[in-house]
Amino acid sequence: MSHIRGRFQKDAAEAVVKYTSSLPFDWRLYQQDIRGSIAHARMLAKQDIISSEEARTLVEGLNAVDAEIKGGRFDFKPELEDIHMAVESRLLELIGPVAGKLHTARSRNDQIALDMRLYVRDAIKETQSKVRLLQRSLLEQAEKNKGILMPGYTHMQPAQPVLLAHHLLAYFEMFERDHERFADAYKRTDVMPLGSGALAGAAYKLDRAFVASELGFNRMSQNSLDAVSDRDFVIEYMGAASLGMMHLSRLAEELVLWSSSEFGFVEVDDSYATASSIMPQKKNPDVAELGRGKTGRVFGHLMGMLAMMKALPLSYNRDLQEDKEALFDTVDTLVASLEVFTGMMSTLQFKPYNMERALGQGYILATDVADYLVKKGVSFREAHGITGHLVSYAIGCNKALEDLTLEEYQKFSQLFKEDIRSISVASSVASKNVPGGTAPDQVADQILRCRKILG
Amino acid sequence: MSHIRGRFQKDAAEAVVKYTSSLPFDWRLYQQDIRGSIAHARMLAKQDIISSEEARTLVEGLNAVDAEIKGGRFDFKPELEDIHMAVESRLLELIGPVAGKLHTARSRNDQIALDMRLYVRDAIKETQSKVRLLQRSLLEQAEKNKGILMPGYTHMQPAQPVLLAHHLLAYFEMFERDHERFADAYKRTDVMPLGSGALAGAAYKLDRAFVASELGFNRMSQNSLDAVSDRDFVIEYMGAASLGMMHLSRLAEELVLWSSSEFGFVEVDDSYATASSIMPQKKNPDVAELGRGKTGRVFGHLMGMLAMMKALPLSYNRDLQEDKEALFDTVDTLVASLEVFTGMMSTLQFKPYNMERALGQGYILATDVADYLVKKGVSFREAHGITGHLVSYAIGCNKALEDLTLEEYQKFSQLFKEDIRSISVASSVASKNVPGGTAPDQVADQILRCRKILG
Amino acid sequence: MSHIRGRFQKDAAEAVVKYTSSLPFDWRLYQQDIRGSIAHARMLAKQDIISSEEARTLVEGLNAVDAEIKGGRFDFKPELEDIHMAVESRLLELIGPVAGKLHTARSRNDQIALDMRLYVRDAIKETQSKVRLLQRSLLEQAEKNKGILMPGYTHMQPAQPVLLAHHLLAYFEMFERDHERFADAYKRTDVMPLGSGALAGAAYKLDRAFVASELGFNRMSQNSLDAVSDRDFVIEYMGAASLGMMHLSRLAEELVLWSSSEFGFVEVDDSYATASSIMPQKKNPDVAELGRGKTGRVFGHLMGMLAMMKALPLSYNRDLQEDKEALFDTVDTLVASLEVFTGMMSTLQFKPYNMERALGQGYILATDVADYLVKKGVSFREAHGITGHLVSYAIGCNKALEDLTLEEYQKFSQLFKEDIRSISVASSVASKNVPGGTAPDQVADQILRCRKILG
Amino acid sequence: MSHIRGRFQKDAAEAVVKYTSSLPFDWRLYQQDIRGSIAHARMLAKQDIISSEEARTLVEGLNAVDAEIKGGRFDFKPELEDIHMAVESRLLELIGPVAGKLHTARSRNDQIALDMRLYVRDAIKETQSKVRLLQRSLLEQAEKNKGILMPGYTHMQPAQPVLLAHHLLAYFEMFERDHERFADAYKRTDVMPLGSGALAGAAYKLDRAFVASELGFNRMSQNSLDAVSDRDFVIEYMGAASLGMMHLSRLAEELVLWSSSEFGFVEVDDSYATASSIMPQKKNPDVAELGRGKTGRVFGHLMGMLAMMKALPLSYNRDLQEDKEALFDTVDTLVASLEVFTGMMSTLQFKPYNMERALGQGYILATDVADYLVKKGVSFREAHGITGHLVSYAIGCNKALEDLTLEEYQKFSQLFKEDIRSISVASSVASKNVPGGTAPDQVADQILRCRKILG
Repeated sequence: MSHIRGRFQKDAAEAVVKYTSSLPFDWRLYQQDIRGSIAHARMLAKQDIISSEEARTLVEGLNAVDAEIKGGRFDFKPELEDIHMAVESRLLELIGPVAGKLHTARSRNDQIALDMRLYVRDAIKETQSKVRLLQRSLLEQAEKNKGILMPGYTHMQPAQPVLLAHHLLAYFEMFERDHERFADAYKRTDVMPLGSGALAGAAYKLDRAFVASELGFNRMSQNSLDAVSDRDFVIEYMGAASLGMMHLSRLAEELVLWSSSEFGFVEVDDSYATASSIMPQKKNPDVAELGRGKTGRVFGHLMGMLAMMKALPLSYNRDLQEDKEALFDTVDTLVASLEVFTGMMSTLQFKPYNMERALGQGYILATDVADYLVKKGVSFREAHGITGHLVSYAIGCNKALEDLTLEEYQKFSQLFKEDIRSISVASSVASKNVPGGTAPDQVADQILRCRKILG
Repeated sequence: MSHIRGRFQKDAAEAVVKYTSSLPFDWRLYQQDIRGSIAHARMLAKQDIISSEEARTLVEGLNAVDAEIKGGRFDFKPELEDIHMAVESRLLELIGPVAGKLHTARSRNDQIALDMRLYVRDAIKETQSKVRLLQRSLLEQAEKNKGILMPGYTHMQPAQPVLLAHHLLAYFEMFERDHERFADAYKRTDVMPLGSGALAGAAYKLDRAFVASELGFNRMSQNSLDAVSDRDFVIEYMGAASLGMMHLSRLAEELVLWSSSEFGFVEVDDSYATASSIMPQKKNPDVAELGRGKTGRVFGHLMGMLAMMKALPLSYNRDLQEDKEALFDTVDTLVASLEVFTGMMSTLQFKPYNMERALGQGYILATDVADYLVKKGVSFREAHGITGHLVSYAIGCNKALEDLTLEEYQKFSQLFKEDIRSISVASSVASKNVPGGTAPDQVADQILRCRKILG
Repeated sequence: MSHIRGRFQKDAAEAVVKYTSSLPFDWRLYQQDIRGSIAHARMLAKQDIISSEEARTLVEGLNAVDAEIKGGRFDFKPELEDIHMAVESRLLELIGPVAGKLHTARSRNDQIALDMRLYVRDAIKETQSKVRLLQRSLLEQAEKNKGILMPGYTHMQPAQPVLLAHHLLAYFEMFERDHERFADAYKRTDVMPLGSGALAGAAYKLDRAFVASELGFNRMSQNSLDAVSDRDFVIEYMGAASLGMMHLSRLAEELVLWSSSEFGFVEVDDSYATASSIMPQKKNPDVAELGRGKTGRVFGHLMGMLAMMKALPLSYNRDLQEDKEALFDTVDTLVASLEVFTGMMSTLQFKPYNMERALGQGYILATDVADYLVKKGVSFREAHGITGHLVSYAIGCNKALEDLTLEEYQKFSQLFKEDIRSISVASSVASKNVPGGTAPDQVADQILRCRKILG
Repeated sequence: MSHIRGRFQKDAAEAVVKYTSSLPFDWRLYQQDIRGSIAHARMLAKQDIISSEEARTLVEGLNAVDAEIKGGRFDFKPELEDIHMAVESRLLELIGPVAGKLHTARSRNDQIALDMRLYVRDAIKETQSKVRLLQRSLLEQAEKNKGILMPGYTHMQPAQPVLLAHHLLAYFEMFERDHERFADAYKRTDVMPLGSGALAGAAYKLDRAFVASELGFNRMSQNSLDAVSDRDFVIEYMGAASLGMMHLSRLAEELVLWSSSEFGFVEVDDSYATASSIMPQKKNPDVAELGRGKTGRVFGHLMGMLAMMKALPLSYNRDLQEDKEALFDTVDTLVASLEVFTGMMSTLQFKPYNMERALGQGYILATDVADYLVKKGVSFREAHGITGHLVSYAIGCNKALEDLTLEEYQKFSQLFKEDIRSISVASSVASKNVPGGTAPDQVADQILRCRKILG
């Protein structure tokens, strides 16, 4: 019978042990758990709650356990409930009864809160560095393909010409917000909960600030009841991850579209494409599709966590154990997706010829025609109407705008002069010369700004 | 380089292989995959697409692979993409090039659709049988504790007295709906998709009905494009599972409440409770809490799948690979939760004394007083008002209704006579003598009905 | 002060009245509420709980209220809490104190359960009829465009040729499952809850079967505690609606894609397209986009309801009031989307020329080449490899498969003979002659089957 | 026919107009829309794109429209698509054709992005101020009830005594994080998008910085494609709101629990409670329940928005219109819930007597007994074991810990001395004297800190 079941008559049923054990997944927290225990042991000694020698023994023992786990020599026995018990029971084997002193002034409730916060801090740092790498690959493609023009779309209809670089940098912006959002989440994760005990605080003279400083925390929790039952930081990571995956899913959608024969704007590198077991000609953009699909999974984890936390009374409840698998999978999914999208973007080939061909479709310069009239004094609403009728006419005789004669133009407005023929895709793009616009100068400025962000 | 990458210049990047491989989780489908392949091989022979000898060789080989996997002797090499490839490549090693014929007239697209349908059929059957076991434990407790009275609550306020058995059978009803819902989902799962090929059907004279019959399917898919991209049956399982977990979460909530010192209505058996690492007195209903917490996870999987399927064009897209982990975890979670709740309910101790004490609180017989007046001809609205003022008066002088004198009653209405004193918890319960009501006779009828359902 | 607050010292705060009032949305249930009340009144008279004359007065009064609301002459005073109170208080004004008798043996808890079930029954019927209309428009387009060929896609890459009619009927199948799923949900909605009282049943000799029969219910609830707190049927509607919207979102995605200049497969009728305020040339498939977007909203309502129900103890809790707005919006969204998609599909123009052109891209006949080899005795795996290399060669010299000479074919296998040149899009489609396949005969059979389903 | 449909042959179908119109809900943005238009008009004049007189006319006209809407004198005609068109068409009536100039260099795509950002900025400010009010009511109750002791719970079992004030301040901390999170969301909302045009930027010499400054924005968007399709700020509000509602749901759960007869820790003021239509004695904490229930709704909106945004290609798509209703309802729900919970908390009565009685249950001082042994040199693990057996013994003879004799204590350890009898609820609480712990001095410090936060 587990040594903490002193008041019980029976051991837990086997099915219960299996159902409630978190060791199969929380073993991943072993480094965080041991780092936290070392800081705790040092503090206990500093405060004369245990002797320095006891602390030394504990720290050496903990390092030994750490080495065993890292080295794959650790036996995660299924009957140990969780990573805390697994470490502690091995510590007992290694250093004897002094191991029992490590749990002084500490509960699994504040211990797991600490482990999770250490883990999420690490996860945020890693995620942010992967975001930076993806941004870098987008920026490099923008620089490399600075001159390429393509149709900008709204409603998936050709709308106005844009620079490919401008389009790529739109994703840079999205990931920049993600980076910033993770930085904000970090602030609320970076709070040291140890010393909250089971729920009420500890009945010992602890130096919580010392532990915080040992572990590099900037803040300490201010309310023990809250500290052991707060999982906001987990949900906030998931929220930021959901937005990040959503952005990836948009990029994925465009890569899938652009890889189609109909668009033909890009070719995914062979190393980022997969084959069909039945259709020999197929080259599928599976990585993009799978990234798009994995978005749902991350949304689902966020939803699951919110539902789990709903209406939980204070303070610790076992429901909270459910925070781990969903979080781990969210981190794994986001990090792996960022990595693989980075490689895919870096090796992506663009096909300017097809983009150019697409620019010829869909009367993409119609707005420029309307703007031409506005600059001659027509109100925008009226100019829009005139151009609409002009387009309708051109569709009717199956002509492109550039194929219309001046006479045909003038049927719709006498303000059209010969210079209407100088409107082109290039002039259209150049005219969008406002900050954030697609004019080459503006995009060049943005490239500089993005460079600076990446440092 | 994988043998299906004939048109490629390069192999997939290592990160891509890892990102896209489903073998780490879809190995769980090996039985379904092999069952399906055997049926397919037999049909190919029956239709003279391969020879009977080839079919025999294939079937024997497949059985050998099955035995290897079951026996833990199978090497799931990470570079194999999925369970189909893993089985097929081992088959090639075992029986040579004839293995290549197994893929005739079949694509991984219809093959995985088949495997998933076989899996979900099995999962539904298993889930239903676990639901039945939980219903049985509820029914047995209802029978065993037939005489116990307790407060029925609305808004967590004592409302009217009910039989404990009646309360337990409310959960029987919920799980009965779950059982029925899974049966309905089964009908739409029980559809044989093989022969749909990659998307367009197969270019061979297949006998799809033969395969269906070999595998015990009642229906065949009617549109190949739909068949390879339909995952409704996965989502429908998850939807039914979400309702099932929601019901468990309600039961869990009540068990947690009732285990509190303040209610004290039940005691969870020691074998279904856990201890605290810091507070020696604690006996925690962790199983119930964890079951409640796991509800969020199942909701999340449902949401993730819906988001994944949203706006996917026809037909197969790699996003669909994301159906598996979420489904497997949903099945595992629901089945394990049903099991452990069954054990917990079977061993639960009820504490009638505390229920009886709770019946004495909160003026639980006030509705009976109002009904008393109605039966003397007062309209219900008026009777409700009179009784409201009576209760307000009783609270004011800190008396229970049964402590009021007849004179006090009559201050509020002259219709009160001596027989008002005969209103009791027992008379209240007995008066709810309509089908579905809490009167002992009605509950006895329901117990009979439930017995019949369980067969 | 509200007449039911007899035991209170104060009225509810104004903010509380506003926060808790459901009248702003549950007024929509007025017909259901009145139908239920009429049935209840008749039953009370039948059982001699009220007199026949009282019943007649009540029924006449209720019909008068119904007429007032229908006629827009009803004053929904904000201080009335909900539709039950609104109807009852007007009834009191119209017929005097006998109105108070209507609430005999009934609580708002079972009354709202009844209203909601009547509403969902109606909603299911309406939804099903709209599903049928959309199926009809799909079928008609399939029939009208029987001969059109198009590329079938997997991973949005051209995979194999299919019939447009086959593609359209894939959606027929999806909506057929939706129709069936709603029918199943109906069974569990069609359960009469009245007589469950507040939670424990009623203390009167009710004839619940009579009420059920008056209102056309096939089943009666069997447990009063369950009956007043069960909202499974609401969630089940939402689950089926989520699948339905998911199917619409897939159709929407394809319409948006197919409307792009790059695909150009369809042209949405002007009456189903919208214009741009700035770009005069734009014709946007907004209806499809908006339908796709509304999918998220319906998923969200499902998730919200599940989260709301999670861990609610028995029996009625005020949280349940939250079932209404989400349900109403789900029904409205699904029904409106089905309608508008029906109109859009009926008026959709297909552009066979562009589909044909797209068939010329992407080596769409490669699988047919591989199948050619299989029929000459090569194993499928080997044939797949040979064809892969052939495609790779063709891409390298920028030729279509049909442009290759027999000599070029034979470089890859001597089994290729002159008849390899007879492989065509038409022969490919015709070869998929299995049930559910895309061969014209099979599709013709399916059209017959679908006709029969629509009756 | 709408004036922007120049290229169309037909008007939109009536059902399409109804389906796509956003005016029924986006009229709520009229103030933001008009503020934005005024700033735009001024900038156009400053840049000599229109004349100062035209600008003056436009601004006066816009102010007139604003006054009409505020005054309820505006006719929101259903055929106008959205708030932009509604305002513009009225402007045309009021000031004539010059109204058409307002749309120069602006698209509805950047206009709605601006309106939404202005709205969310306002919503964040309002939400934050409501959060502060709720925090204030929590703090005031903590101050007013400084001396009250209650059981702290884990797993809903009495765990260790805490101060009621400490418990209340746990919620202060949660809402403090919410406040901070909204401040972070504000930074990313506070970005001026106008000048992004339909998607590519504007073809006019705009002064975007001027518009930003007129409208009090700190940042400008840097990429036009991103700016018109970014709704991160909407989702981020919803994410923060979901956490806020989750916190409210936890408070609600405790209020419902504590209002039960079994706990009896609080009495909700009559003005925040509701009555039953059938049970005259009932006083229901409906406000808390409804707040708990509304949590699901806000979660659902978040999920719906994420699903809506998933896999949308650049740039604007009509799906985005779906951001509004969900956002408005989220803001309304959160703000109303914060308000009504503030009132409920301010008027809440605590019942110290019942809390004290509850402290006597459940061996709540067992950890203190274990800590007593630790301070005598026993390792915590051993001390926990001894105390566990002691509790088991006490349960066996149905005694409280304080009823045990010293001899009985010493049966379990000779280290127990007479001073074991001095352990009390008060000594337990006092011993938790670490920052964030429940000792009175610590809680007093926290009260000071919270006071400072509220300013």
